[in-house]
Amino acid sequence: MSEKEIITAPIPTIRRLPRYIHLLTRLKRDNVEVLSTTRIAEELGFEAIQVRKDIAVTGIVGKPKKGYDLDELLNALRHFLNWDNNTDAFLVGVGALGKAILGYSNFKSYGLNVLAAFDSDINKIGTKYNGVEIFPVDKLDDLIQRLRVHIGVITVPASEAQFVADLMVKGGVKAIWNFAPRAIKVPSEIILENVHLSQSLAVLTHKLSQMNDE
Amino acid sequence: MSEKEIITAPIPTIRRLPRYIHLLTRLKRDNVEVLSTTRIAEELGFEAIQVRKDIAVTGIVGKPKKGYDLDELLNALRHFLNWDNNTDAFLVGVGALGKAILGYSNFKSYGLNVLAAFDSDINKIGTKYNGVEIFPVDKLDDLIQRLRVHIGVITVPASEAQFVADLMVKGGVKAIWNFAPRAIKVPSEIILENVHLSQSLAVLTHKLSQMNDE
Repeated sequence: MSEKEIITAPIPTIRRLPRYIHLLTRLKRDNVEVLSTTRIAEELGFEAIQVRKDIAVTGIVGKPKKGYDLDELLNALRHFLNWDNNTDAFLVGVGALGKAILGYSNFKSYGLNVLAAFDSDINKIGTKYNGVEIFPVDKLDDLIQRLRVHIGVITVPASEAQFVADLMVKGGVKAIWNFAPRAIKVPSEIILENVHLSQSLAVLTHKLSQMNDE
Repeated sequence: MSEKEIITAPIPTIRRLPRYIHLLTRLKRDNVEVLSTTRIAEELGFEAIQVRKDIAVTGIVGKPKKGYDLDELLNALRHFLNWDNNTDAFLVGVGALGKAILGYSNFKSYGLNVLAAFDSDINKIGTKYNGVEIFPVDKLDDLIQRLRVHIGVITVPASEAQFVADLMVKGGVKAIWNFAPRAIKVPSEIILENVHLSQSLAVLTHKLSQMNDE
């Protein structure tokens, strides 16, 4: 354990923090320097009390009647999420979804640096997408180990997700960001974040069906 | 209000239901006909008590010592989410992310039928992606109205998201599935589901930074 104090926060709070970062980044471009809880609450559609609580996890306190110093708050939020350090990642599966992730250059400002991509299609190997070179999947675990890559991003079809996850674990990743629509099993010490787009769609279609019944 | 009973459930439960549908669809292909709570819990990594509670929202009850009839449970889950009815949708923004959504043919089995796509790039207009024709954005609200489309999917860059949302609302959509990394404002009667990939990444990078501090 380092001397650095470990600050943590509830997962729903952590999930909201990127929205503050997006807002502050946009306002910074408009040369805003100071802003109030009320302004943030209005822009994001949150209650002011929630904004105060969310920001409190970073340790930043607003000045009475003035509000928050934009740069100070932005830096604190980015530091809290570790987005001020780029963490190297490998992405496996350069299909449409993999390309969408590789093409989304914003991830660099979120601390995710995709060093290389991997695919099983020999026609893709050796080519580049958005500046990222594509390697064969059978080199995955070896390159994770040699380059000490900490994050693996899975964008392969469901049927290959567990196979790829096993290779990532074998290579030594610490965290897996899984976009494949299949539950994968990893040892308990590995951080696993699943993005299941169908979960979000489920909420939408269920609400829509209730609206149609009214 | 129709005679049909309105059943609802907590949002976290609704978000888990697609995972049951994925599992049951896979097991159906393996000719499984009956399965127990324990089996479902093991496959999905949930507690058995949670599986029982989740399934209860559909009104389906397992048979003692046998378990659930797979077809009956699968139909009930799909019906609950309204995935047994295809709902027409328009997608706006045929960049990498839009293509990923259009290319993900599974959405049809989730009740989402993307009728047409829209883009502002004149080189894309009139072409097709994965069988879906691409129209100019200035036809969006008129076509939503004429074809009575209920769902709008936004996959444009952040700066255009509000403009597209306003057009969708003007046309008369009932629900918006927003992938743009920007909060959009819509009237309260519109169902809005935001997919912010950065939220999921925030949880992952924050946990990773805590692990590195240990």
